[in-house]
Amino acid sequence: MNQVQLSPNSPSLEAATLYTIGVDIGGTNSEIGFVDRQGRCLRKVTLATMARQPFSLFKHQLVTTIEELMHDLGGQYQCLGLGVALPGAGAPNGDVRHPSNFAWPAFNIIEALSPHFSFPIHVTNDANAAAIGEKKYGKVKDLDNFVVITLGTGVGGGVFIDGQPLIGARGLAAELGHIVTVPGGRKCGCGKRGCLETYTSATGIRRTIMELIAEMGPANHGFNNLSFDQLTARHIFDAAQNNDPLALEAFRRTGTMLGTKMADLVPLFDPQAFVLFGGLTGAGPFLMEPVQAAFETNLGEPFQGKIPVYTSGVPYNEAAILGACHIPEFTN
Amino acid sequence: MNQVQLSPNSPSLEAATLYTIGVDIGGTNSEIGFVDRQGRCLRKVTLATMARQPFSLFKHQLVTTIEELMHDLGGQYQCLGLGVALPGAGAPNGDVRHPSNFAWPAFNIIEALSPHFSFPIHVTNDANAAAIGEKKYGKVKDLDNFVVITLGTGVGGGVFIDGQPLIGARGLAAELGHIVTVPGGRKCGCGKRGCLETYTSATGIRRTIMELIAEMGPANHGFNNLSFDQLTARHIFDAAQNNDPLALEAFRRTGTMLGTKMADLVPLFDPQAFVLFGGLTGAGPFLMEPVQAAFETNLGEPFQGKIPVYTSGVPYNEAAILGACHIPEFTN
Repeated sequence: MNQVQLSPNSPSLEAATLYTIGVDIGGTNSEIGFVDRQGRCLRKVTLATMARQPFSLFKHQLVTTIEELMHDLGGQYQCLGLGVALPGAGAPNGDVRHPSNFAWPAFNIIEALSPHFSFPIHVTNDANAAAIGEKKYGKVKDLDNFVVITLGTGVGGGVFIDGQPLIGARGLAAELGHIVTVPGGRKCGCGKRGCLETYTSATGIRRTIMELIAEMGPANHGFNNLSFDQLTARHIFDAAQNNDPLALEAFRRTGTMLGTKMADLVPLFDPQAFVLFGGLTGAGPFLMEPVQAAFETNLGEPFQGKIPVYTSGVPYNEAAILGACHIPEFTN
Repeated sequence: MNQVQLSPNSPSLEAATLYTIGVDIGGTNSEIGFVDRQGRCLRKVTLATMARQPFSLFKHQLVTTIEELMHDLGGQYQCLGLGVALPGAGAPNGDVRHPSNFAWPAFNIIEALSPHFSFPIHVTNDANAAAIGEKKYGKVKDLDNFVVITLGTGVGGGVFIDGQPLIGARGLAAELGHIVTVPGGRKCGCGKRGCLETYTSATGIRRTIMELIAEMGPANHGFNNLSFDQLTARHIFDAAQNNDPLALEAFRRTGTMLGTKMADLVPLFDPQAFVLFGGLTGAGPFLMEPVQAAFETNLGEPFQGKIPVYTSGVPYNEAAILGACHIPEFTN
């Protein structure tokens, strides 16, 4: 179905459009993009990840959706490959382990998907994919040393060193979400306590709202009638726009903690820039102002004023989808 | 003086021994080693660094000592180059900045030394040199991903990733001594507070003894009659061997803090092993037992039981001297 049929009297060979499929599997939603060689999404679909259900359910939906999209595109398009970005994926062989916001057990995503497709499949973790996307199409495309932090359901990290993503001995390096930020602090899905992700992810800021309700009591704020399950990061953003004191304080705490920890990564990686990516960055200055302030305050002297903190420069939050389409260029 | 004179009727060309000079400049003492191509020290001399005096004083002593040693060796030996390891050196061009235990201002060590010698001079920071030494001659010689932590007057880090030392955009990466371990904690020479080095260096454990005297009062311990200037890490080790309760507690706190922070580096670098190097490791189990315990306790599940923590496998504490002799092999 994905083969382009060209006869000698085809009007033009250039009429065949080559594309790659990039899939960004998040803890809540997953996005599928059909991406041409200029990095434009020809088609984009969002699926619910159902991360608390068995993987087979999501796999079925993913495969079916891709097949339908390919069918819709028709014979003028040729698929070059599939790139998958998901938390816990590290090793290039496709082994996935411990995605901490997922109920999926350890499995191999390439083995799971390859029976369904005839083209090559590549895998990396979601934050590495975002970092590759930023390197190819974002504000850091001319830099070789930078740190990307993804702020979604969880927190991930992608670190570029001398133009290559940091992978580590087991494919588990640059897991910035699981550095301990508050010793003995919040319980994390990874089994440890106090991990950065328990504070600065979308889930983390929802936990912070609960903490603030406990601290402040039934004060003048808009969160008294929302359960934890009902509460989303979007509610907190909307409330902040209405000057809700709890929402403003939640962003202040979240941004301060993130900026402080980012400064602490600087003597480790000596980066030229940071890029923040993912849903929570949609909060704009509510998040970014305390991030910037805490970051600069906590930088060592040789770095002060020298390391910009960007939000993703890739339009439509597509850094991870686009990055997933370029995995083979950045893995040996 | 450093030229080998060989006439056609020399008994044997092999009689000329090639060597490299490795210099490891520490906050207290500096070591000069004349190292043959098998990694053996032909000559070794220790100098006081006089880090609180102007650099010119130390430079004069260093140059004079090297010249004398070369003269002593005589014409049967040929020098291939000089490698210098010192804190704050990062960039391969020789720029040295902010050695936090030194009163030396920013300077260029290659420019300072090259007028005195006719052979090539290479520079890296002390911890990178130790990491190179461990990679060439130590327990990690078959590994490509590992972390070396130097525990001397300060704390330094050398991180190998895929067989290469992590350098960073400005030559300032892997500065493990300056990650914040206790937010708002002890004042550090780098200008920040709570850096790892303020707790787990030789200076750090001396500060911990002072803290313990404050906490415990004039109890049954052997530190009441020593000033901070008089107190050395050696005193603390000797006291620990005599079951001094303050000394034992100081090692327990130091090791626990170090092991905990080491575990927190694992999700960043995904290393195969750690190597601890430098004076404080001479304390053996007093330090290493709490390090090991805290390290394993704080590891995430995928890493538990899989990452050995070694003390240096290079004899005579020569890892940094030997590493300094191999800098060009590991810098591009």
